[in-house]
Amino acid sequence: MKQLAVLGSTGSIGQQTLQIVRTLPHKFCIVGLAAGENIDLLAKQINEFKPRLVYYQNRETQTRLANTEYELLSMEEIASHPLVDTVVIATSGKSGLYPTLAALKAGKNVALANKESLVIAGEIITNEARLNSAQLLPIDSEHSAIWQCLNGETQPAAQLVLTASGGPFRNYSLAQLQEVTVEQTLKHPSWQMGRKVTVDSATLMNKGLEVIEAHWLFNIPFDNIKILIHPQSIVHSMVEFIDGSIKAQLSYPDMRLPIQYALSYPERLANPQLPKIDWSRIKNLTFEQPDFDTFPCLSLAIEAGKKGGTYPAVLCAADEVAVELFLSQRIKFVDIANLVEQTLEQHQAITHPTLDEIMMADTWARQKTLKFATGDTL
Amino acid sequence: MKQLAVLGSTGSIGQQTLQIVRTLPHKFCIVGLAAGENIDLLAKQINEFKPRLVYYQNRETQTRLANTEYELLSMEEIASHPLVDTVVIATSGKSGLYPTLAALKAGKNVALANKESLVIAGEIITNEARLNSAQLLPIDSEHSAIWQCLNGETQPAAQLVLTASGGPFRNYSLAQLQEVTVEQTLKHPSWQMGRKVTVDSATLMNKGLEVIEAHWLFNIPFDNIKILIHPQSIVHSMVEFIDGSIKAQLSYPDMRLPIQYALSYPERLANPQLPKIDWSRIKNLTFEQPDFDTFPCLSLAIEAGKKGGTYPAVLCAADEVAVELFLSQRIKFVDIANLVEQTLEQHQAITHPTLDEIMMADTWARQKTLKFATGDTL
Repeated sequence: MKQLAVLGSTGSIGQQTLQIVRTLPHKFCIVGLAAGENIDLLAKQINEFKPRLVYYQNRETQTRLANTEYELLSMEEIASHPLVDTVVIATSGKSGLYPTLAALKAGKNVALANKESLVIAGEIITNEARLNSAQLLPIDSEHSAIWQCLNGETQPAAQLVLTASGGPFRNYSLAQLQEVTVEQTLKHPSWQMGRKVTVDSATLMNKGLEVIEAHWLFNIPFDNIKILIHPQSIVHSMVEFIDGSIKAQLSYPDMRLPIQYALSYPERLANPQLPKIDWSRIKNLTFEQPDFDTFPCLSLAIEAGKKGGTYPAVLCAADEVAVELFLSQRIKFVDIANLVEQTLEQHQAITHPTLDEIMMADTWARQKTLKFATGDTL
Repeated sequence: MKQLAVLGSTGSIGQQTLQIVRTLPHKFCIVGLAAGENIDLLAKQINEFKPRLVYYQNRETQTRLANTEYELLSMEEIASHPLVDTVVIATSGKSGLYPTLAALKAGKNVALANKESLVIAGEIITNEARLNSAQLLPIDSEHSAIWQCLNGETQPAAQLVLTASGGPFRNYSLAQLQEVTVEQTLKHPSWQMGRKVTVDSATLMNKGLEVIEAHWLFNIPFDNIKILIHPQSIVHSMVEFIDGSIKAQLSYPDMRLPIQYALSYPERLANPQLPKIDWSRIKNLTFEQPDFDTFPCLSLAIEAGKKGGTYPAVLCAADEVAVELFLSQRIKFVDIANLVEQTLEQHQAITHPTLDEIMMADTWARQKTLKFATGDTL
């Protein structure tokens, strides 16, 4: 019975994690829950799962949630608590970083759905994992696919092939992209996700962030990570080995599979709720090369990853601000890439940054991006 | 340095095995070679690789081949010789059976390209491997794919998906099949292979035999082995696990990869001669359900496999005779399935047969098939 803490339990990944625990109660037990502002849902989750450890934002000012016994702690305290075996980091943005590090320092396994932590602090996180023999278990479908394909192999990958659906604007021209609306952007053809990551999927920034994640998770040079557009989202990624053999992982696009695999690893668990591929319905899997010119966020992210230091933190922060401005209809879709590029260009990077230096770069980038966009400051 | 004996060294798989040894001379060394009637090629191979152990057919009556020191032995003696680490069984038909068993009894690893041995005596062979802790290393591209996908997994497969190119007559109607010629049959769209297996690929008998092989190699019930037509021959097979996740192995159709993997396992070796998939050229992977009505050999094989006992031996023998009759233009393409079916129908099977009983069933089936076809006896 694995004892789980789910940080970000009211978000999309958090809720799907709890669905799995609900289906497999003999395998997993919830000992910790943490959420941001969706207090009503968190209260329901506390009543259902009766965790011993709870965090919620502004907890000092809130009335106590639910009629069960629990201890109110910080996310870091929950992540490193002796009761916890595996910490699921399903928070959004950079809020996942400190709990991730706290969990790794305490030697916990960390099932990581939060992209930003690894993108902005990949060196610090992977060092911490190594030092404490703690395992990073990827939850992103692409990284889960790669991890599954590497399982049992005695040698590193020669090349990773990250697949991308291409998002709602695949095959759009630059001119067409000028006109796209928020509504169109939020209609992803194959995945149901949160708003921020759905916009990032449309700009392909999401894929660029995944390249950086893959670099850190699998310790592989950027030049050996390729991207392939695969609109059906059935092949979740591939690994090429030194003999030219390729392994791919396939399933319907459903995040519950990579979540469950991260939790059950190295075992796999039967779960009737997980869909099985029906090969009588899949006639065609198609592949295209990515269009780096039309989707500049992809190159911006890969370049920031290659340069390293505080560049990825600036990339993430600038993107977060730009996406927020786009969602509130203050800038156009194509301005997201422009703003990120302008901000990166002005950045004076620090190599091998400390956490404080990363956070300072983040703050600097947010202010700069906002200023570029609107003349305002934060 | 692995010491190899290659039985069937002048055939297609044998020659490709030697190509790999030629490319990776620091990894593999040829200590034994055995061939049938292609004495000229064998002599060249002996001169090049200078094996210590040699077998060739009718060796009593032949003059000595090549000017090197070697011992003339039987295939069984080579397969079990103390000098040998791994035996590559690349002979055709049932001649691979006794050397396979001799190698396993001596605790050697057996890289098995010969289908028939496992089809007709799967129970005996897998028992022998288990008893002697000897490993069966599949060389067929489909079984190699499955084996690679199972690597590192701690639980058995939920389902195997064997892919099939569909052969030259994919999407032909029964009426169209009535008219096909030997020449058309020998033009396989994606694989270069020997004549017998090329005809078996056109009737889909080959895929049926592979289902039986997969049953024995991976200890999986027939009902959990599916067939999927995949004309591009890039996905070589897939494994579905209990959580619904699927792993697939992909590469261009080139037998040198599965041969090399069987020889290098658990390691993989870089080999510049092995082609790497170029994803800018692969736009489309397509999948279709197999047509059991038009290609009755598929069901005949699976049924024979399910019934077990001496049925698979009868299936193989009847097919071998029927294919020979077709190649010599004495019967039509569609008669292959008819003859195999008639012969199977008349068979009085023995369950858990001994080797002698398997060989008797083989002899019986050959006579019966020939009689059905021509009125002749062998």
